Amino acid sequence: MNVRKLKDLLKNLKLERITMEEAIAQLKSLPFEDLGFARIDHHRSLRKGFPEVIWGEGKTPGQVLSIMKELKRKGQNILITRVGEKKAKAVQKVFLKSRYYPRSKVLTYLTHPVKPEGKGTILVITAGTTDIPVAEEAAITAQFMGNAVETLYDVGVAGIHRLLSEKGKLEAARVLIVVAGMEGALPSVVGGLVNQPVIAVPTSVGYGTSFGGITALLAMLNSCASGVSVVNIDNGFGAGYMASLINRM
Amino acid sequence: MNVRKLKDLLKNLKLERITMEEAIAQLKSLPFEDLGFARIDHHRSLRKGFPEVIWGEGKTPGQVLSIMKELKRKGQNILITRVGEKKAKAVQKVFLKSRYYPRSKVLTYLTHPVKPEGKGTILVITAGTTDIPVAEEAAITAQFMGNAVETLYDVGVAGIHRLLSEKGKLEAARVLIVVAGMEGALPSVVGGLVNQPVIAVPTSVGYGTSFGGITALLAMLNSCASGVSVVNIDNGFGAGYMASLINRM
Amino acid sequence: MNVRKLKDLLKNLKLERITMEEAIAQLKSLPFEDLGFARIDHHRSLRKGFPEVIWGEGKTPGQVLSIMKELKRKGQNILITRVGEKKAKAVQKVFLKSRYYPRSKVLTYLTHPVKPEGKGTILVITAGTTDIPVAEEAAITAQFMGNAVETLYDVGVAGIHRLLSEKGKLEAARVLIVVAGMEGALPSVVGGLVNQPVIAVPTSVGYGTSFGGITALLAMLNSCASGVSVVNIDNGFGAGYMASLINRM
Amino acid sequence: MNVRKLKDLLKNLKLERITMEEAIAQLKSLPFEDLGFARIDHHRSLRKGFPEVIWGEGKTPGQVLSIMKELKRKGQNILITRVGEKKAKAVQKVFLKSRYYPRSKVLTYLTHPVKPEGKGTILVITAGTTDIPVAEEAAITAQFMGNAVETLYDVGVAGIHRLLSEKGKLEAARVLIVVAGMEGALPSVVGGLVNQPVIAVPTSVGYGTSFGGITALLAMLNSCASGVSVVNIDNGFGAGYMASLINRM
Amino acid sequence: MNVRKLKDLLKNLKLERITMEEAIAQLKSLPFEDLGFARIDHHRSLRKGFPEVIWGEGKTPGQVLSIMKELKRKGQNILITRVGEKKAKAVQKVFLKSRYYPRSKVLTYLTHPVKPEGKGTILVITAGTTDIPVAEEAAITAQFMGNAVETLYDVGVAGIHRLLSEKGKLEAARVLIVVAGMEGALPSVVGGLVNQPVIAVPTSVGYGTSFGGITALLAMLNSCASGVSVVNIDNGFGAGYMASLINRM
Amino acid sequence: MNVRKLKDLLKNLKLERITMEEAIAQLKSLPFEDLGFARIDHHRSLRKGFPEVIWGEGKTPGQVLSIMKELKRKGQNILITRVGEKKAKAVQKVFLKSRYYPRSKVLTYLTHPVKPEGKGTILVITAGTTDIPVAEEAAITAQFMGNAVETLYDVGVAGIHRLLSEKGKLEAARVLIVVAGMEGALPSVVGGLVNQPVIAVPTSVGYGTSFGGITALLAMLNSCASGVSVVNIDNGFGAGYMASLINRM
Amino acid sequence: MNVRKLKDLLKNLKLERITMEEAIAQLKSLPFEDLGFARIDHHRSLRKGFPEVIWGEGKTPGQVLSIMKELKRKGQNILITRVGEKKAKAVQKVFLKSRYYPRSKVLTYLTHPVKPEGKGTILVITAGTTDIPVAEEAAITAQFMGNAVETLYDVGVAGIHRLLSEKGKLEAARVLIVVAGMEGALPSVVGGLVNQPVIAVPTSVGYGTSFGGITALLAMLNSCASGVSVVNIDNGFGAGYMASLINRM
Amino acid sequence: MNVRKLKDLLKNLKLERITMEEAIAQLKSLPFEDLGFARIDHHRSLRKGFPEVIWGEGKTPGQVLSIMKELKRKGQNILITRVGEKKAKAVQKVFLKSRYYPRSKVLTYLTHPVKPEGKGTILVITAGTTDIPVAEEAAITAQFMGNAVETLYDVGVAGIHRLLSEKGKLEAARVLIVVAGMEGALPSVVGGLVNQPVIAVPTSVGYGTSFGGITALLAMLNSCASGVSVVNIDNGFGAGYMASLINRM
Repeated sequence: MNVRKLKDLLKNLKLERITMEEAIAQLKSLPFEDLGFARIDHHRSLRKGFPEVIWGEGKTPGQVLSIMKELKRKGQNILITRVGEKKAKAVQKVFLKSRYYPRSKVLTYLTHPVKPEGKGTILVITAGTTDIPVAEEAAITAQFMGNAVETLYDVGVAGIHRLLSEKGKLEAARVLIVVAGMEGALPSVVGGLVNQPVIAVPTSVGYGTSFGGITALLAMLNSCASGVSVVNIDNGFGAGYMASLINRM
Repeated sequence: MNVRKLKDLLKNLKLERITMEEAIAQLKSLPFEDLGFARIDHHRSLRKGFPEVIWGEGKTPGQVLSIMKELKRKGQNILITRVGEKKAKAVQKVFLKSRYYPRSKVLTYLTHPVKPEGKGTILVITAGTTDIPVAEEAAITAQFMGNAVETLYDVGVAGIHRLLSEKGKLEAARVLIVVAGMEGALPSVVGGLVNQPVIAVPTSVGYGTSFGGITALLAMLNSCASGVSVVNIDNGFGAGYMASLINRM
Repeated sequence: MNVRKLKDLLKNLKLERITMEEAIAQLKSLPFEDLGFARIDHHRSLRKGFPEVIWGEGKTPGQVLSIMKELKRKGQNILITRVGEKKAKAVQKVFLKSRYYPRSKVLTYLTHPVKPEGKGTILVITAGTTDIPVAEEAAITAQFMGNAVETLYDVGVAGIHRLLSEKGKLEAARVLIVVAGMEGALPSVVGGLVNQPVIAVPTSVGYGTSFGGITALLAMLNSCASGVSVVNIDNGFGAGYMASLINRM
Repeated sequence: MNVRKLKDLLKNLKLERITMEEAIAQLKSLPFEDLGFARIDHHRSLRKGFPEVIWGEGKTPGQVLSIMKELKRKGQNILITRVGEKKAKAVQKVFLKSRYYPRSKVLTYLTHPVKPEGKGTILVITAGTTDIPVAEEAAITAQFMGNAVETLYDVGVAGIHRLLSEKGKLEAARVLIVVAGMEGALPSVVGGLVNQPVIAVPTSVGYGTSFGGITALLAMLNSCASGVSVVNIDNGFGAGYMASLINRM
Repeated sequence: MNVRKLKDLLKNLKLERITMEEAIAQLKSLPFEDLGFARIDHHRSLRKGFPEVIWGEGKTPGQVLSIMKELKRKGQNILITRVGEKKAKAVQKVFLKSRYYPRSKVLTYLTHPVKPEGKGTILVITAGTTDIPVAEEAAITAQFMGNAVETLYDVGVAGIHRLLSEKGKLEAARVLIVVAGMEGALPSVVGGLVNQPVIAVPTSVGYGTSFGGITALLAMLNSCASGVSVVNIDNGFGAGYMASLINRM
Repeated sequence: MNVRKLKDLLKNLKLERITMEEAIAQLKSLPFEDLGFARIDHHRSLRKGFPEVIWGEGKTPGQVLSIMKELKRKGQNILITRVGEKKAKAVQKVFLKSRYYPRSKVLTYLTHPVKPEGKGTILVITAGTTDIPVAEEAAITAQFMGNAVETLYDVGVAGIHRLLSEKGKLEAARVLIVVAGMEGALPSVVGGLVNQPVIAVPTSVGYGTSFGGITALLAMLNSCASGVSVVNIDNGFGAGYMASLINRM
Repeated sequence: MNVRKLKDLLKNLKLERITMEEAIAQLKSLPFEDLGFARIDHHRSLRKGFPEVIWGEGKTPGQVLSIMKELKRKGQNILITRVGEKKAKAVQKVFLKSRYYPRSKVLTYLTHPVKPEGKGTILVITAGTTDIPVAEEAAITAQFMGNAVETLYDVGVAGIHRLLSEKGKLEAARVLIVVAGMEGALPSVVGGLVNQPVIAVPTSVGYGTSFGGITALLAMLNSCASGVSVVNIDNGFGAGYMASLINRM
Repeated sequence: MNVRKLKDLLKNLKLERITMEEAIAQLKSLPFEDLGFARIDHHRSLRKGFPEVIWGEGKTPGQVLSIMKELKRKGQNILITRVGEKKAKAVQKVFLKSRYYPRSKVLTYLTHPVKPEGKGTILVITAGTTDIPVAEEAAITAQFMGNAVETLYDVGVAGIHRLLSEKGKLEAARVLIVVAGMEGALPSVVGGLVNQPVIAVPTSVGYGTSFGGITALLAMLNSCASGVSVVNIDNGFGAGYMASLINRM
């Protein structure tokens, strides 16, 4: 139903060509897609309090730039994940103040300061140093969404004391993101030590039967600790986003 | 280090056979396991605010009963998952006031009223009616942990209007648990509609290439919506627990 | 938005408390779910020209009966798939005129004669005799949806002449459903011989590396013949439904 | 049996050296492959109304060119899929009027205008922008086979309103092709909204547990919506071909 | 083309209403399926020198009996695989002289003595005693097809001397069938010791990661010895058949 | 080469019909299988210091009994794994002094006291109580092979303090067997705490994506701790055997 | 046992320090590895009638050359598989008369003419043109081993008449090698048409769910035709070798 | 608990402000992480007798160098695995006396001579020559940890005599590492021949269904020989480490 039809309906009501009951009936039968859902979508964006993040993979520099320009025009802060170094350089030539994190391949551009949204600290933990790129993606995402973030890297279960000696840090966090490849055991141990929600992120770190992160993923899904839920392999962004939603509560 | 050794050390300090610095050095080098960690474990239980749930599978009625008696003695509320009907009957003969939910195979016994802990409502959604047993496990767990729980069953994506017509209910919830088998698409749709954390639970409902829930699990891990994390197949308990942790925040 | 709010809005318009532009703006911002989508759903059922089929698996006889009664009350024809023999007997005691097909575990009940909908014949082909139960589910579904159905059983590729000698039958059909387990090669051969759409159905027939139908499924997805699309393992119903949609065109 | 032997047989019949019964018996026992099936093959091409498409992968530019020349000589329109850019350039040097679509790696060459064959519109839908290359392969194939094609891109289930707001377009189509990677949920939602056959195409878009399209494929095979059948991962051509067969009916 | 049409054609030739060239052209254009391929099928059976074996799985006793009666009527020897004990008893009540092998679930019935066809001995080897049922299926099949069969059981690679001490037997065989579950290493070792074709049969013997025979299958496919080819898991019949074909040469 | 031929050769040497060089050359060319390797096998048994264990699965009571009788006659101690309760009862009627462990389905019979072989203690650890049957199989095997065995059950990583508080026990062991299902993380943690070889045993305990022990197996193979090697799923016997070999050193 | 010990033994026999019985006993107890098995190995090579083929993958040009020189010195014909183009060039600089087949990456060098060994023709069939490299590896291997080889390429099941029209060729062959990727259906069809052993070779040709040849492999293992056995994916050499062994019989 | 708090506690004890019992109670309740676990970690390193090995993969030359400098400063010997050639060169420019093994990509640097730790010889065996890189990683690791190492390469099961002729070498070893790709059968054969612990290492050598080492891994896990345990695919280091732990015993 385009606006004209809607106007006619209302005009008919005003002119008493139709009764109010008839008007209501007609309105109810309108196909909902004619009611301007683009606007509802807009509302959704506002409600989410977070603009859509750009998934950089498979987009040309030109495509990325044109999306960024539109978002900048709307005054939104911008977060792009999985941006290769070449693409990042092309972006940075245009967006001089954008910031690129080569380790995690994240690029951010702020049109206004990030507004604090989180009520506590999000702690990002890794089992090894090779898990850090994924952890950094999570950490940047969480910071970008207005959270205080702390990190605790290289505390894998083969040297359990390294983790235990930081128990204070674990307990101080409001939400924990635990990033691990190989056997993926760290979230279970962390989940057994703390009281807060743990978001587990398997990484593709490993070789042979690590199967690009599947082993870590399976281990996390089978965690014998309660209070652990899991996101996709290498999905640092997803973990950061989920933790941010929780930390606002 | 047993207590005797510790006593000797302290005695030596008191008797000034060793200096305070020496005492500290000796104490630091003690293997930590000698310091009575059982008590720390006890603390952990308190901190978690939730006693260990009994996984009923693979335990005899006798084993279940003896654990229940001990927990009852400690004055704890008891939740047992995956209790077959036979086992449930054996339990109910002894624990007359226990309550059994045959659909979800959960058994509960309350020594004291559940204390409200959750700040809002947890909404448990299913794609189909055959997903309800898993959803019920999640719902009972969440109630048991002190949450108000609402349910919205049989709103799968093949009839998307059924879900959309309940958008108010979706938005009223503080945490959402979405339970689906087959193609596991529902959490993505829900995650796109709401602002709150979504815990996705794949179920083993389906046949052929549903592979006992693997297809649903994979779909959920690959959700194109943000704010979705996943637990193991059929793990209603895990979802209810995770949602409860979040709802306390 | 409940009806009262809508009435108020229209009343305000009539009373010229708000302009037509304001009314339109308010209407557009209404959450669409308040506009009575149940009716739209109803429309959808009509449009589909086919009531929802009942998936019998995992439903108690009581559940099946209560759904059947409601559908009967609406005057709809009823098709239930995956009904075990016990359940079928329970249904037939109440619905005396219902018909049960033990081989394919399908149960039908007609409140009125099936109206012809298909423009041509749907041909259901199997590779072996053990694939017939799935083929029968497809055939009954197609007949139930108003199609003329022919069958051609046991014409697997190891005796290719059996198929070739029926080429006339192949060419006379308007849509073909090809059901095969084991190596699942038949749809490729049929797809190479005919000009019409082929719906391929893998079955769980076989042993060892047939992997319950996965091998047949994969073979069908990789068909070197064009004009072949695939449904889930053992999903005779899905193939019958898809073929029916096509045969109406 | 070569022609000479056949001539002898008939000559013997004419000369009454053998009876008609003997002639028939001998004819029946002839190996059928001697009867000039190449011609039958030719007939098949005509019947299919569509020459064999060239699968460009693994063919050298020289091989592609020689096949194209032969097809051109026969006056056929030519469609080549999976042509890398280098190979396309080599082809375009010789076939100046050929057209190359770099995004979908399709190359077409028309010897005569495409004859309209489809009775309605084929609508090609994608979940994301990264699914477009596969969708374009489907769209070009369908156009090449004489169909009117419309597209609806980037309407994935995480923003379900985008899809719903185009419901008119969905209903106007005669056949729908739905292309999606990641969790592959879109065909289920579309299948629940429309009345027409839906061809689902999983794409290899995604990372981690998307497993190069397997997750999307499995989700589509397990669709809870009826009227959905599936082709191989990234098989845009196959979907376009299948939709074309249906749209002629 | 039915016989009448063929007769007309020949009559016209004889009556010189058509020339021989026209007759040939018409004959060539006949659809081959009209030439009585059923007979060709019959020929194929003769050529194969072996009637179709009945796959007993999934057939009712009644179905098995009716097939047997028809084959008996034709004077053929009968081999049925995968016959459960109950079914076997039902068969033996009617076919008193049939013989049932409970270990391998094979049933045979001879209408005439087996004619020797094999030129040498087929040796059937197993790794363990639990592989014997599959080996026996192979052995009976080979005997039934007219071969001298020897067996060598329980000579797995963990006690390699047991195999080596029978090297004479290995070398005396003309074809070897090697049956193994678990790690499936035996065919590689045998293939390295002998000069003759080795047919490898993986069995579903094992537990855990033997995955119902997949591990053995994969090991056999990756054999570092030449002269080894593989059949499906537990497919003793297939191995016996293949070995019989080879032993006739 | 049978003994006669060997005698002839030596006689010829003695009679100087052949030179010593010729004798040596002839001896070297003898096929080794003629030299009575059965005896070597016998030697191997002695060297192994451990008779072959009987794998009870798939053997009838009669088969088990006849093997036991032969072993008893040779004066060997007997260990049978995977003996179901029925089979065990049948055995115990004949071997009155045999001992059956229903939890691990192991049956032992001693003809003479077990001779101590191990130099230290083997510690068998489990993550949960449901892993105990597999652990018991390992423990009994190790005891049967002459080792002192200690156990430490239910110390899974979700309550890491339970493990840490037993560090003394861990360090006192000479070899450790770590048994775990679900996420299989325990061997990594143990391997990081100790200095001794760790044999990891995945169990089929769990549900959903535990995949019958595959997840635990993969986690163990990917252990980030050094000094961990792995046996098959539920292979308690294999772990006990391997630990015994090591503990003798 | 080194030669000296053997000499001593024989000397003692001659000098009658030991009896013949003692000598035999001592000889029998000798560890067989001291009897010069290298020579037996040599015998094996002769018996096999075929020198070990070099697997070129993973070997440096230098390594390949040094092996070739040694084989040339022994006067053996040489076949190397999986030789990349660079490596081939390096070889051909030294072995000027060697022949390289770039399509199949095979390199051969003849020191003497190939001796005919096969009794009939080996027919190598492919489903598509992209399967030809693997087929060529099989064909060259078979020729190299002394067989007459014929080929029949691009006769896949989607155009079944192409195969049927060559039935004469199929029947003329003594052994058939059938090479196919994608759905791997061709061996089933061929196996149903002929009487001779069929060696099936899956190829990695395809995309998406062809899984690098796994689909074709599974289809072949599940062939509903008898007389088909299978080798590893892309293992043209293995098929050629196996067919050669059979064709000598 | 920082040192100050500990001092206060002890001071209070000395000053008799608290009793010894109170002191002990307070000490026991201290969070263990405050007790300086870094030192315990240090102890662990000493106990292990082996510094942490550097996993070179995914580390920049700069990172590797800085870790090496720190370890050198501590006077430790250094072993780095999975170092690419470029990275190795960068390291060797700084650490002139470091040694690089390009085949196995291992780099070592000795600050002091390796101290003998092993009591016997570790024998490293490979099935083929392409398995040598992994074997070399195992061998270097074992030597680096103070063991005498012998190697026995290219003795795969297809030429079993090659292995048997070295039985003396097998028996002389104290621990055996068996490295194999493809069908992974060698550890089973070796395990059946010897009395000592066998560490099996699957390698990614092979093609097609070798699946990058999975087939070899599965075969090894299912070994029918006792006394075999397994490490990850291509994990030469892990095998060398495990064997070293055992050889010290």
